[in-house]
Amino acid sequence: MDKTTSPLDSLFNPRSIAIVGASANPDKQGHRYLKQLLDFGFKGKIYPVNPQGKEILGLEVYPSVSVIPEPVDYVISTIPAEHVPQLIQDCARNGVKVLQLYTAQLGETGIPERKQLEEHIASLARQVGIRLLGPNCMGVYRPETGLTFRFVSAKAKGDVAFVSQSAGHAAEVMYRGSLRGLNFSKVISYGNAVDINETELLDYLAQDTDTRIIIAYIEGVRSPDFPKVLKAVARRKPVIIFKVGRTEAGARAAASHTGSLAGSYAIWKGIMKQCRAITVESLEELMDTAIAFAKLPPPKGRNVGAIGSGGGGSILAGDEFELHGLRMPPMPQGVLDKVKTFLGDDWMMIKNPVDSSVVLPAGWGYEEIKRIFRIIAEHPLYQILLADAGEWRPDASFEVSDYQSLVGLFLEVRKVTEKPMAIVLRPADHAEEWKWRGFMEQQQRCVREGAAIFPSVACAARALGKFVNYHLG
Amino acid sequence: MDKTTSPLDSLFNPRSIAIVGASANPDKQGHRYLKQLLDFGFKGKIYPVNPQGKEILGLEVYPSVSVIPEPVDYVISTIPAEHVPQLIQDCARNGVKVLQLYTAQLGETGIPERKQLEEHIASLARQVGIRLLGPNCMGVYRPETGLTFRFVSAKAKGDVAFVSQSAGHAAEVMYRGSLRGLNFSKVISYGNAVDINETELLDYLAQDTDTRIIIAYIEGVRSPDFPKVLKAVARRKPVIIFKVGRTEAGARAAASHTGSLAGSYAIWKGIMKQCRAITVESLEELMDTAIAFAKLPPPKGRNVGAIGSGGGGSILAGDEFELHGLRMPPMPQGVLDKVKTFLGDDWMMIKNPVDSSVVLPAGWGYEEIKRIFRIIAEHPLYQILLADAGEWRPDASFEVSDYQSLVGLFLEVRKVTEKPMAIVLRPADHAEEWKWRGFMEQQQRCVREGAAIFPSVACAARALGKFVNYHLG
Repeated sequence: MDKTTSPLDSLFNPRSIAIVGASANPDKQGHRYLKQLLDFGFKGKIYPVNPQGKEILGLEVYPSVSVIPEPVDYVISTIPAEHVPQLIQDCARNGVKVLQLYTAQLGETGIPERKQLEEHIASLARQVGIRLLGPNCMGVYRPETGLTFRFVSAKAKGDVAFVSQSAGHAAEVMYRGSLRGLNFSKVISYGNAVDINETELLDYLAQDTDTRIIIAYIEGVRSPDFPKVLKAVARRKPVIIFKVGRTEAGARAAASHTGSLAGSYAIWKGIMKQCRAITVESLEELMDTAIAFAKLPPPKGRNVGAIGSGGGGSILAGDEFELHGLRMPPMPQGVLDKVKTFLGDDWMMIKNPVDSSVVLPAGWGYEEIKRIFRIIAEHPLYQILLADAGEWRPDASFEVSDYQSLVGLFLEVRKVTEKPMAIVLRPADHAEEWKWRGFMEQQQRCVREGAAIFPSVACAARALGKFVNYHLG
Repeated sequence: MDKTTSPLDSLFNPRSIAIVGASANPDKQGHRYLKQLLDFGFKGKIYPVNPQGKEILGLEVYPSVSVIPEPVDYVISTIPAEHVPQLIQDCARNGVKVLQLYTAQLGETGIPERKQLEEHIASLARQVGIRLLGPNCMGVYRPETGLTFRFVSAKAKGDVAFVSQSAGHAAEVMYRGSLRGLNFSKVISYGNAVDINETELLDYLAQDTDTRIIIAYIEGVRSPDFPKVLKAVARRKPVIIFKVGRTEAGARAAASHTGSLAGSYAIWKGIMKQCRAITVESLEELMDTAIAFAKLPPPKGRNVGAIGSGGGGSILAGDEFELHGLRMPPMPQGVLDKVKTFLGDDWMMIKNPVDSSVVLPAGWGYEEIKRIFRIIAEHPLYQILLADAGEWRPDASFEVSDYQSLVGLFLEVRKVTEKPMAIVLRPADHAEEWKWRGFMEQQQRCVREGAAIFPSVACAARALGKFVNYHLG
């Protein structure tokens, strides 16, 4: 894509950023933006702006955008809304391309005069040809150029773009996602969307060569072109959307958060289906589904071959995968015959999923489970692999080294197969440090190797179901 | 209840236990049972049984149950199935009341001769008047008498009983539940249920004065009396059931786990509804719902007043609670008027949920949030309280002390209200130790105070929905 052709280029690739409302007080957002960009290593120039002048964090402070000696691509405003009209004039004098309003207390308050002020701001910006992001938004995260709106931001660049009307949800998905190896090309918190909206962002990302998958959190759609654009975008890339305001209370909250009209959820689902976009119904599902698309090769069929743990867990796996449109057929004779060569009569204990909690106490080791899993991975009956480490209950009878062995064999088989493999690891929220550490180390090992990890079999099944349906219809 | 009237009394209150297959090898289950009972402080006598005699863990080993000088109430068998018929004769000679078969590889294998052996075992036991638990089960956990089948078992006694056909699921709910303060009166892993089954256990627990709430995990019902008994039990106590085998693959796995016939799930749900039992569809939901029932006073209405975090989070809360049959009405004038007295014009930012991520940056502190929450808690419009700590993203702008303050004020308001309050804390699976510790400490603080904690707003809404529907119909 020729990025010079899009007016949004200044949003994602600014040569310079001014922070209006910059402050020496570390509790102020005008300080945080500055420090976050410096810490994260923003590659362009940074101009703090504050009428009091002086210096903040070693940078010269300008009293106004209009006196900055060079043109500024991207301005972030943290000042009260009533000063924004003046700011727009200053920006116009400088030649600013995009103005992002962290500034809030506008349309989302529901108060008529604040709504009018928001409209006034939008119309002023239009008149002088400055694009607006927000108001009431955090802005852009793009690791490649050192853009961020958070102190704890992953440096790793991914190929997932996240368009989020909520900054809190953007941050939650970035933070929790990074623990699971979900990395981003771009994240945009776009708030009230009086100018740049979900539709323009989707359209831009469809053409963005750094973005392979688009995920979105939407409270209310702003553009009447949304269905048409979404349809075109979803033809090029998977688009996974979590839409809220499904109920009266939710819709009321959406109105007071970003001034959004949530609309009918039934109509929404119809549009999503027509456009072949992927609907999810929670942030957790948004992350899980994004991980499936980001980490796994396209599936060639619906049959899941699995290593599980516990008889109860096996039943759960069967139920959950079938409920989400996949199949978990019994082990074929071809697999059992091969297993028989080293397991002898104990081949009889091999089901789908293979229950490691039965095989291990029978006197077999992780080496045999690995051999069995490789045989399953190689068998043409199965096109998808599931490896569930089970409920890890650190215990005198189960050492951290067991957990390491189990996860280790999953990763070894993963290396020699081209089939998509979901690994299920329960969350590391143990009460003792050694347990937490033992678990977290294995989780991070999976993340380093690029594996797709899920917190439960149910989460894996739900995400894989959508992933497989997308690819196989 | 007069416990002497029930044949199951020996299962829960044995004066003595014999472990057949006791071993000096710590990897053997026959060693683990022994050590677990000793470590957990079982109050009765323990007799290891092994033909080789000698001593294990300081206890004299008997070559056979028949030569133990006193009658044994409860025998645990870890020996291979083919030796069980002889064991039953030995038990009969001793006067044993209950025989629990950890012993497996019977009906659940699907192999005709193993099924026949299982039937033979059941019939022998019937002939000599010995009750059987299992086969293919872990047995009983009862902290009051020091009974357990796990190394890591909570000592704390609760009033929830768990009837679980799967030992793995029993252990998972016990372990994960204990991290959230869910404690048990009794947990029974009952496996293939050739004799003692779900129905007899439910009936027993209905009359058990130590048990206020019954939860169950069932693969297939064994007794034709189940609906009738369940109906009677559910009239006395809340009964929450997770039934698997909802699909073909799940039903196949259920057959090979405990030899269960899963039956039609639609018929199952009909029975559950008729009996006024509570249906849940995952282990997580089973835990969440049990926590609501175990920790919260009965609700007096469906209106939720909430402290939340983030605009996106507020919409989620509105959606999730309404989808589960509760309501989240806007703040009434009575609340706003009181808030106005100390928040001035900023009363306008007070919605339901109150968004702490808006109130705090506006210059207000945790003290004001606490005052607001108290006003909400006191207002008659709201009968249920939700306190969501939000997504905790440890960050230069958010210290552990902030999190402490937030959770602290939730707990303070909780102390002065009689309304049920759900506290939402995200899982502590952070990658750095200080984050994990900071979070886990607050979680444990909530557990110590007896609060009902949930890992997400969606989980809280789902569990509270069932809790409120149970009480208000």
